[in-house]
Amino acid sequence: MLSPLLEQLIEDLQVLPGIGRKSAQRMALQLLERRRDDAAKLCDTLGRAVSEIGRCEGCRTLSETPLCPVCSSSQRDKTRICVVESPAEMLAVEQGTDYRGGYFVLLGRLSPLDGIGPDQLGLDILEQRLAEGGCEELILATNPTVEGEATAQFIAQMAQRYGVSSSRIAYGVPVGGDLDFVDGGTLSHAFSSRQTL
Amino acid sequence: MLSPLLEQLIEDLQVLPGIGRKSAQRMALQLLERRRDDAAKLCDTLGRAVSEIGRCEGCRTLSETPLCPVCSSSQRDKTRICVVESPAEMLAVEQGTDYRGGYFVLLGRLSPLDGIGPDQLGLDILEQRLAEGGCEELILATNPTVEGEATAQFIAQMAQRYGVSSSRIAYGVPVGGDLDFVDGGTLSHAFSSRQTL
Repeated sequence: MLSPLLEQLIEDLQVLPGIGRKSAQRMALQLLERRRDDAAKLCDTLGRAVSEIGRCEGCRTLSETPLCPVCSSSQRDKTRICVVESPAEMLAVEQGTDYRGGYFVLLGRLSPLDGIGPDQLGLDILEQRLAEGGCEELILATNPTVEGEATAQFIAQMAQRYGVSSSRIAYGVPVGGDLDFVDGGTLSHAFSSRQTL
Repeated sequence: MLSPLLEQLIEDLQVLPGIGRKSAQRMALQLLERRRDDAAKLCDTLGRAVSEIGRCEGCRTLSETPLCPVCSSSQRDKTRICVVESPAEMLAVEQGTDYRGGYFVLLGRLSPLDGIGPDQLGLDILEQRLAEGGCEELILATNPTVEGEATAQFIAQMAQRYGVSSSRIAYGVPVGGDLDFVDGGTLSHAFSSRQTL
């Protein structure tokens, strides 16, 4: 009983993560009822983003310029590269830590069964950056999953060939967490990596 | 440290109701990383919706055609008109009840302090529909607030002038609710409107 175009808009809004039918309906109605100017602006920005945003040539993150703000900044410590799986994780590291070196975004993880090998992750680009020299430490911040771990191992071996040291972010109990709710694997990692006070 | 266009997209996505910085960031990254085709489609639909969707000439709901699907349907009971405040509420009535008559969407409620009078609510259009005859019952489904109530009273008086009977949706305890959590006003309404079994 909605008009076809409105129905279509509600349908299309559901591609947004975490948005179901009910939220999409609220969004569509609110945009059209009260925020038409904002909707037009959003539409314009989204259109430009889809057509203009590509990959940074340096670190493969999302960027509309050939080099992203991090890669083109002179304030950054170029001797360290942090390897993450996605732009979202790059942002998480940037916002949550005081790390101010460079990044490399894999856009995935090694997963031979899904046909994702070193080439799909742009590891040739990373290898080239290592070969060029200047990098002293590779910080492997892939996710703590089996595949993320395998990816980290693979990259660590590659770094070794170029004499670059690599480190893996620490496993342990999350800050503010309750030992009761931490799984066994994490707890055993936290024990074996215990540090002297 | 995000590229300017990406930052702008995250900003603009926050016009969506219930979407803050963090969700907007997730949306922007997911759309650009994995769902570019869907994003382009959403962009196209949103653009068309903003420029094409206007008001139905019959009931003032959102529609890109002069008459919305409800007003142009021959299956609908034209002798009853349900008055609601917004298209979202029209949808709620449509989806939650078996009412299959016509609608009239006020797009607001009487609120003299905010400069919203009968004209802003399109009551002249409703009056014309009443004057044309054919309508036997006006179901007043404005919100159970002070302003919604005043609006309902105002419209009921208007309907009376044209000899059309009007009814107000019932106040009472919500189905599945707990009397403990129902406010006093609602409970006292529920008592005074009690029905013999």
